[in-house]
Amino acid sequence: MSAPTENPAEVDRQNPEAEITARAEAFRNWGRWGEDDVLGTLNFIDPAARVAAAALVREGRVISLAQSFDTNGPQKGWRRRTNPVHTMTDTGVDAERGNQGFPHGIGGADDVISMPLQCSTQWDGLGHIFDHGMAWNGRRAGDVVTSEGDLVTGIEHAASVIVSRGVLLDVGRFLQPETAELPDGYAITVADLEGCAAAQSVAIGRGDIVLVRTGQLARARRDGWGDYAGGPAPGLSLTTAGWLHRTEIAAIATDTWGFEVRPNEFDVPAFQPLHQVVIPNLGLTIGEMWDLEELGSAAADTGRYDFLLSAAPLPITGAVGSPINPVAIL
Amino acid sequence: MSAPTENPAEVDRQNPEAEITARAEAFRNWGRWGEDDVLGTLNFIDPAARVAAAALVREGRVISLAQSFDTNGPQKGWRRRTNPVHTMTDTGVDAERGNQGFPHGIGGADDVISMPLQCSTQWDGLGHIFDHGMAWNGRRAGDVVTSEGDLVTGIEHAASVIVSRGVLLDVGRFLQPETAELPDGYAITVADLEGCAAAQSVAIGRGDIVLVRTGQLARARRDGWGDYAGGPAPGLSLTTAGWLHRTEIAAIATDTWGFEVRPNEFDVPAFQPLHQVVIPNLGLTIGEMWDLEELGSAAADTGRYDFLLSAAPLPITGAVGSPINPVAIL
Amino acid sequence: MSAPTENPAEVDRQNPEAEITARAEAFRNWGRWGEDDVLGTLNFIDPAARVAAAALVREGRVISLAQSFDTNGPQKGWRRRTNPVHTMTDTGVDAERGNQGFPHGIGGADDVISMPLQCSTQWDGLGHIFDHGMAWNGRRAGDVVTSEGDLVTGIEHAASVIVSRGVLLDVGRFLQPETAELPDGYAITVADLEGCAAAQSVAIGRGDIVLVRTGQLARARRDGWGDYAGGPAPGLSLTTAGWLHRTEIAAIATDTWGFEVRPNEFDVPAFQPLHQVVIPNLGLTIGEMWDLEELGSAAADTGRYDFLLSAAPLPITGAVGSPINPVAIL
Amino acid sequence: MSAPTENPAEVDRQNPEAEITARAEAFRNWGRWGEDDVLGTLNFIDPAARVAAAALVREGRVISLAQSFDTNGPQKGWRRRTNPVHTMTDTGVDAERGNQGFPHGIGGADDVISMPLQCSTQWDGLGHIFDHGMAWNGRRAGDVVTSEGDLVTGIEHAASVIVSRGVLLDVGRFLQPETAELPDGYAITVADLEGCAAAQSVAIGRGDIVLVRTGQLARARRDGWGDYAGGPAPGLSLTTAGWLHRTEIAAIATDTWGFEVRPNEFDVPAFQPLHQVVIPNLGLTIGEMWDLEELGSAAADTGRYDFLLSAAPLPITGAVGSPINPVAIL
Repeated sequence: MSAPTENPAEVDRQNPEAEITARAEAFRNWGRWGEDDVLGTLNFIDPAARVAAAALVREGRVISLAQSFDTNGPQKGWRRRTNPVHTMTDTGVDAERGNQGFPHGIGGADDVISMPLQCSTQWDGLGHIFDHGMAWNGRRAGDVVTSEGDLVTGIEHAASVIVSRGVLLDVGRFLQPETAELPDGYAITVADLEGCAAAQSVAIGRGDIVLVRTGQLARARRDGWGDYAGGPAPGLSLTTAGWLHRTEIAAIATDTWGFEVRPNEFDVPAFQPLHQVVIPNLGLTIGEMWDLEELGSAAADTGRYDFLLSAAPLPITGAVGSPINPVAIL
Repeated sequence: MSAPTENPAEVDRQNPEAEITARAEAFRNWGRWGEDDVLGTLNFIDPAARVAAAALVREGRVISLAQSFDTNGPQKGWRRRTNPVHTMTDTGVDAERGNQGFPHGIGGADDVISMPLQCSTQWDGLGHIFDHGMAWNGRRAGDVVTSEGDLVTGIEHAASVIVSRGVLLDVGRFLQPETAELPDGYAITVADLEGCAAAQSVAIGRGDIVLVRTGQLARARRDGWGDYAGGPAPGLSLTTAGWLHRTEIAAIATDTWGFEVRPNEFDVPAFQPLHQVVIPNLGLTIGEMWDLEELGSAAADTGRYDFLLSAAPLPITGAVGSPINPVAIL
Repeated sequence: MSAPTENPAEVDRQNPEAEITARAEAFRNWGRWGEDDVLGTLNFIDPAARVAAAALVREGRVISLAQSFDTNGPQKGWRRRTNPVHTMTDTGVDAERGNQGFPHGIGGADDVISMPLQCSTQWDGLGHIFDHGMAWNGRRAGDVVTSEGDLVTGIEHAASVIVSRGVLLDVGRFLQPETAELPDGYAITVADLEGCAAAQSVAIGRGDIVLVRTGQLARARRDGWGDYAGGPAPGLSLTTAGWLHRTEIAAIATDTWGFEVRPNEFDVPAFQPLHQVVIPNLGLTIGEMWDLEELGSAAADTGRYDFLLSAAPLPITGAVGSPINPVAIL
Repeated sequence: MSAPTENPAEVDRQNPEAEITARAEAFRNWGRWGEDDVLGTLNFIDPAARVAAAALVREGRVISLAQSFDTNGPQKGWRRRTNPVHTMTDTGVDAERGNQGFPHGIGGADDVISMPLQCSTQWDGLGHIFDHGMAWNGRRAGDVVTSEGDLVTGIEHAASVIVSRGVLLDVGRFLQPETAELPDGYAITVADLEGCAAAQSVAIGRGDIVLVRTGQLARARRDGWGDYAGGPAPGLSLTTAGWLHRTEIAAIATDTWGFEVRPNEFDVPAFQPLHQVVIPNLGLTIGEMWDLEELGSAAADTGRYDFLLSAAPLPITGAVGSPINPVAIL
């Protein structure tokens, strides 16, 4: 069997199932880290990689890669994904007025939140996507994620893992030097990723966390959210699955809602085919809705595209995703 | 006026208001970083400190300092502080059964959470506590935190700030070598903090984030939560306010619910007097309910008590606290 | 002082404050039911009225007047008013698969909801609206509704009260016999209300609960929600305040988001002026977003416009509103 | 096959599965109202019954049968069933202080709630319980209740149905005239139900909604919630299944957490066996956690045990239960 094509023009646009299956089979990592594995490609991060990444900290600058968590976000309710609702249980107004009943002049404010775990900047956990009823490492989906949550590969397992070298691939600036924004529907290819890395003089390797900036977020901020959540977007082509596999990266994130190109690269109904290949089959952790604007500008200024990335999820037991505030430490 | 005593035995246990006010006035940092400041002592973190802290990464080991976020937590509903409620909007069971209506064999799981922002491991934001109706930097509490949230000092302002040198003070092991646990109600003094640092051969200085391990969490895990949330606990004495001020630390966290000793050091009704001094007056960011067990063991093994600490909050707009997964990178 | 005009053309469109104040002062019921009153005009319902209303039950037919509670509702997030988010904590899929761990073949499904109390069909409680810092019965707003909720007039006080004679005024059909829908922005006048009642041969009196059908909901169902939540709508004119007072009705509800006409009847910024008059000053309980479609059709068929109305709120302690399923029993 | 015993002493306490199955098979109503039925025994309510019930309204008195919805409720987190969390998004304190930015002196308060649908007074929907993977009317559980909710028998279908004659059986007063409280663990038998009805001189028949008062709620209010949620309680014996079937009642409710006696009547692990018989097999709608205290007192005073009961659920689309405020109209 020949390797699946990395040329989007050669994809059979009538047959998502075959295209997905070919890549799932070619790049499947099931068993690679043992039967009990719950981390997938996060296993590629090793202590030495972290020590080396820490040596990249030269300016002492921290850039948050998170979007805001509030009701002004892009969510529109699809599959009950709303924006976060943050409410106060005590306020300064009450404290100042003396309504709180505390002694010696102390007052307090407190708050609660209700939110989908994937409403804003987030990691997809390994239990987020299934391929024909199968979850990461060859487990049956119904054995892994029930109404009680992800009983096996919950995001809490990554709580002390996701710190590594981060590498920004600013594909937006690379391909569109004038606007620094890829158009919606643009499918980023292996050639784009490799060309961008070469142009940036940065190598990508085992254990890295790759951040692909498309520039779509800049556009959404300028023009309004529109269909940022679920609509057309630039993103990775299905044909990058092999690159995601052979580079042995630990994780990847983009500044878009859905990581992969939308509409997807088929003429028949399809939905997130690259997710279907890489999450349950490769065991790849994917980040979405990251804010790579400030980081992109900083990298364009300094010419430095790698840094220490600290992006551990909240250990929400059994979650299939986590809101995060990833920080690039330069 | 002489400096407030650092000897707990000299505190006037009948007069919390006077003891609080003396320290608030002595250690107030209002205006120190300008009228518009929203960060308080986090300003002590400077880029050079971060570069130096990154150099502490020698093993490439990451230790999560977060407790679990789930319904098995310690909260009992006080002031509507419940444990997190995590529910699934899609599951692997549905995916495996073919209930989801997606094409080409893809299936998904998704989830939502409802939780108080201070239900588990967290940072208190600067808008969390007021002193006589005043918030950090001399603002009126009612101008800062309304029902819409913290309009001025919301936790989002710290999103790209809280990465610095972390220093563990394992006061539990220092004072109780046999059990490594301080008893409930034990008030940690300046002498204890300084003695512990000396015994650990670690210096504490400007911009550091100090983690004080009492061992109470280990006890709660062994014996059950009991009154971990709001009941008796070891913690910092009110008399440490001067030390918290003069060391110019950026932030401090403990493994307890409430940071300071409980019951508080008064014979009349009192509530979190050290909070009242340090949050609105010093502008000190406080962490609570951190899990310092693995870190304490690691430090006891290696003798190394400082590390790179990455603990940026989720940028929840207007929040007065944030759930976090702080990581020590050793 | 002459009575405020009931002719919308005579309203001073430059001066909402004066127009509101005139009506607030003219129709204020403060003290009418004693200093401790928490019910306002609901006091007009008396036992005899209920017995008489029960005698209106002739068909044994029940018509629900509630809209659906789900994510397909009209809310768009204004002031954090979202549609309800309903999630399952256990499902039949899990039960069928045997994931639940219960004995002897029993399985279960369970669910949770997060929602604004005024997201769909609801009652406004008396603590929902204030007039110059004052709440119903002349209390200071800050003494009544704090971050802990409505400490005085919470909706729970109406839990055993709101059952009375209901009267439908189908103003949509009365004024627009062809479409049965009033246009957005149409201000319903006292003349309209009285003309409609006369045309329907129904009298309105003390203790009645009046339901005003505009037909806007029918339009929203046909054309999409659009700006149903907060946008232009037919509704009561500010000039109906006197009628609402002198009829001594117990409560009133409409099929619109906001009860009163929108845009409001001023050429300068204004917001819900009739609310400001009737909730804190008259003590009138207002219902919004009721579904009066089936009831309107039934009444048009039978010529009967009064019925037993059972619409007690959920006793959510301290709530300033309640989701309800009002039922007309014919 | 003989009918299942109605004598609890004859139940095989080693064999819940057989005892359940015998009753499920004997009393199964599948198909009785057609293949598409979504109402079960609620079909027994007919218009004439409602007209007759309305004639029972003689005093014009309304008694709410709901417990409070707040954080002081009995829930302790079992299967993520917490007490309701009600928070304010706007308050009177803000309004009074002028924080809200509205024109002409109007101010507002608004609120949100997060709650399990069965946290307090509620109806169990027909999708709440399954028997060996089967739901009401012989449907597969996984076809009915998925992560999206109850796609077939959601509680919204009952929104215009549950108004009928209510009959109180005050078994607590009947069996324990001194205390009016049954002890925890007491299994109410058919003989008890029939004896109580006879003593009260009230007949029970087709379409009635029966309310069984045990008095446990009075005890919980006096002594604290303790294990009210899920612990030992008086309740219906499994052996009442036949009575529930042959009386052709429309629905039944109790003042306890779980409707049936707890611990259940077996010496081996068992869980809510009567639920397993009556919800999926009979199609019986069950109410729990009703407050029957005031109604019990009123009935004891007047000797009248029947009334018009209005207890329509909130039409939460796809819900398997609903919080309610049932009202008895006397």
